[in-house]
Amino acid sequence: MNYDVIIIGAGPAGYVAAIRAGQVGLKTLLIDKDKVGGMCINWGCIPSKSMIESAKFYYRLNQAEEFGIDGINLSKTSLNWKKAIDRARTISAKMHSGIELLLHKHGVETIIGKAIITAENTISVNKRSITGKNIIIATGSYPIDSDRKGIKSLKALYGLNELPETIAIEGNGAVAVETAQLVNLAGSKTYLVSDSDELVPGVDKYINDYLKKQLKLQGISLIKTNKDISADIWINANQRSAILPESKIKIETTENGFINTNMNLQTNIPSIYAIGDVNGRSSYAHAGSAQGQFVINNIKGVKGGIELGLYPINLYTFPEIAQIGATEQVLQEEDIDYKISEFPLSMNAKAMISGQTEGVVRILSERKYGEVMGVQIIAEHATDMIAEAAAFMEMEATVYDVAKTIHAHPTISEVFMEAGYDAFDKAIHKIK
Amino acid sequence: MNYDVIIIGAGPAGYVAAIRAGQVGLKTLLIDKDKVGGMCINWGCIPSKSMIESAKFYYRLNQAEEFGIDGINLSKTSLNWKKAIDRARTISAKMHSGIELLLHKHGVETIIGKAIITAENTISVNKRSITGKNIIIATGSYPIDSDRKGIKSLKALYGLNELPETIAIEGNGAVAVETAQLVNLAGSKTYLVSDSDELVPGVDKYINDYLKKQLKLQGISLIKTNKDISADIWINANQRSAILPESKIKIETTENGFINTNMNLQTNIPSIYAIGDVNGRSSYAHAGSAQGQFVINNIKGVKGGIELGLYPINLYTFPEIAQIGATEQVLQEEDIDYKISEFPLSMNAKAMISGQTEGVVRILSERKYGEVMGVQIIAEHATDMIAEAAAFMEMEATVYDVAKTIHAHPTISEVFMEAGYDAFDKAIHKIK
Repeated sequence: MNYDVIIIGAGPAGYVAAIRAGQVGLKTLLIDKDKVGGMCINWGCIPSKSMIESAKFYYRLNQAEEFGIDGINLSKTSLNWKKAIDRARTISAKMHSGIELLLHKHGVETIIGKAIITAENTISVNKRSITGKNIIIATGSYPIDSDRKGIKSLKALYGLNELPETIAIEGNGAVAVETAQLVNLAGSKTYLVSDSDELVPGVDKYINDYLKKQLKLQGISLIKTNKDISADIWINANQRSAILPESKIKIETTENGFINTNMNLQTNIPSIYAIGDVNGRSSYAHAGSAQGQFVINNIKGVKGGIELGLYPINLYTFPEIAQIGATEQVLQEEDIDYKISEFPLSMNAKAMISGQTEGVVRILSERKYGEVMGVQIIAEHATDMIAEAAAFMEMEATVYDVAKTIHAHPTISEVFMEAGYDAFDKAIHKIK
Repeated sequence: MNYDVIIIGAGPAGYVAAIRAGQVGLKTLLIDKDKVGGMCINWGCIPSKSMIESAKFYYRLNQAEEFGIDGINLSKTSLNWKKAIDRARTISAKMHSGIELLLHKHGVETIIGKAIITAENTISVNKRSITGKNIIIATGSYPIDSDRKGIKSLKALYGLNELPETIAIEGNGAVAVETAQLVNLAGSKTYLVSDSDELVPGVDKYINDYLKKQLKLQGISLIKTNKDISADIWINANQRSAILPESKIKIETTENGFINTNMNLQTNIPSIYAIGDVNGRSSYAHAGSAQGQFVINNIKGVKGGIELGLYPINLYTFPEIAQIGATEQVLQEEDIDYKISEFPLSMNAKAMISGQTEGVVRILSERKYGEVMGVQIIAEHATDMIAEAAAFMEMEATVYDVAKTIHAHPTISEVFMEAGYDAFDKAIHKIK
């Protein structure tokens, strides 16, 4: 065999698997049809979050006077889409070359080209046939095609020099909602076009209801696909389906077209694994990265597994939203007796100090013993705050553990402790 | 007895104890010589953090162009000290009335006046004699007097309409360093005047060394007290000593003048407790609040104690600094074999996206089993990020637990996971 591991696709699932494989001494080949970093680094999470950061910075200027800053004339400020894109591109490029350096450092070989699986242990790329003890498919996903004529991709949106007056975003899910808020903050009249009642599938109904209200408050029009509107540009941000690799042997898929995997993330061919978006388990980058590490650990025989089902959901909405563990709907389905404890940011000192009082922390706990079953956060820094919830859940903590953990004052993280106390109906700073 | 609990001093130790006492059904009296909220809410943490937030916002305008924001002329912007103070005052007032409401809601009676302890279960205030089963002293602390003629208090600094050209801050510790950075960011030439080599006592030497370098880079002059400088105003931000209540009975103190307490925070008189700054255990607000809850829980017989020694240290420096658990120096003293794992923010995607790449996360773990012994963070949002470390330490987690907890991507919290992996010398994204 030429390699211990051949990985097809160099996004956050594939490249992290490759680095990890190199670290534990496996002879590793990483193949991508385009460039290392994949959709996430080059066209997806990294540049989009960078644009969102620019837009939020721009929006925050509205608070400058309140904070005591003189000399900004808001009628003269604007978000320069092109400049913000250039910054985003610079960050992507830096990440891209950092990853190349890491792959090199850990002895991972890379090939740019289209890989075809030709047998259980063989692939062909750029007309070479290469063998590997293990093959890992990490080819990702793409948005489902739209019926709409002339609709553009997200790449096209990021290729614009300036935004047009009206923009329609087609789709639901994290990317659709984030993109709608981004272009809205940047100053375009925005439509979010979807037939689904769930703005973001998989998040608690409480959050979906909140999001709908919030988008409307921000002036974003939620419309159904059959409604007639005119927009200068339409963007396809639909739900995603798997990008299947070309294969001479049968690799089984689910009814939705994702690659079928068992608990070890093996396909129907035991030497072939599938990780990341392509297996349909999650479309979050960190879930894919964790799957990559999990598979390499298993191949190498490293003990102490990663709990793949326990990962945060992070939405770079405005304000941010994050969730981990079970939703109310899941707990109800599973007939678990649960309690909701919550604490609003509006009563948190640091949130007032930061001028970011929109939001809430909700802890869902099992009623009898108090184990934390799920956490939902709406807050300006929710995507970072969810890490605390992940820590508690990883350690199987109860709400009592959360309550007795001393939190620094004044910090926004105090809402956790308060929500923990609220489980006894005894939050210290809760008025209502 | 008139009351179950009489609390003297309504700062974050006293008022939280009072709310908690009301919640668990104790008949409670809270006495303060000035107003509810104490130094923290009215003159200390809350208004100072609000001012720091204004100054950081102002400083961040330097990044506006890089983020793609057009139309800000930096030569025309300035931080209006008076306006920022007014905002800080508004937040303090809101917190103050929120606390009054909470005290009322939980049935706590309050008296404004000077309390004198007249016997083991008796105090006198405003010429009334009042009895209580338990008396809790929470009278706080004040900065040690300076020899310097004409030196002003922090209150005076916050009373200015605009800052003078040069300011000298006398002292070391969190308040001194935060205040020096605040006035420096706001545009004054700043001197930090102290004979101590430790800028902030109690934090790791690594952080003290970092702080010294950082202050110099920011143009703040660190000078010794004997060096002659001329400044328009001198501010006393010296270390603090206890404010002892007047007492007709002997309440024992330590050699540094703080009230002596046992493990239950009882003084030499078992019916009299001391919590917060006055017992000299910690000068952090949340440590005082936790002590307040701890004492009330003990009085009421609620089980499941709070670990009073495990609390975060939070510095609103620029960037922020936070720490929990043991420092290297403590581990060395205790002869514990430890390992340092660290990960720099400069290699974190979200830190690049936010333009806040200054900083590091360091985890100190016991070498054999990997238990997390201490965590230090330098990062723009370190004071919130330390909550994750507190969660892991509360649950007695190992670095392996930290590493296998899936963190959302892209978030700054990923540095924790990386630092966890670094404990195996295997951080995914670490180049050096």
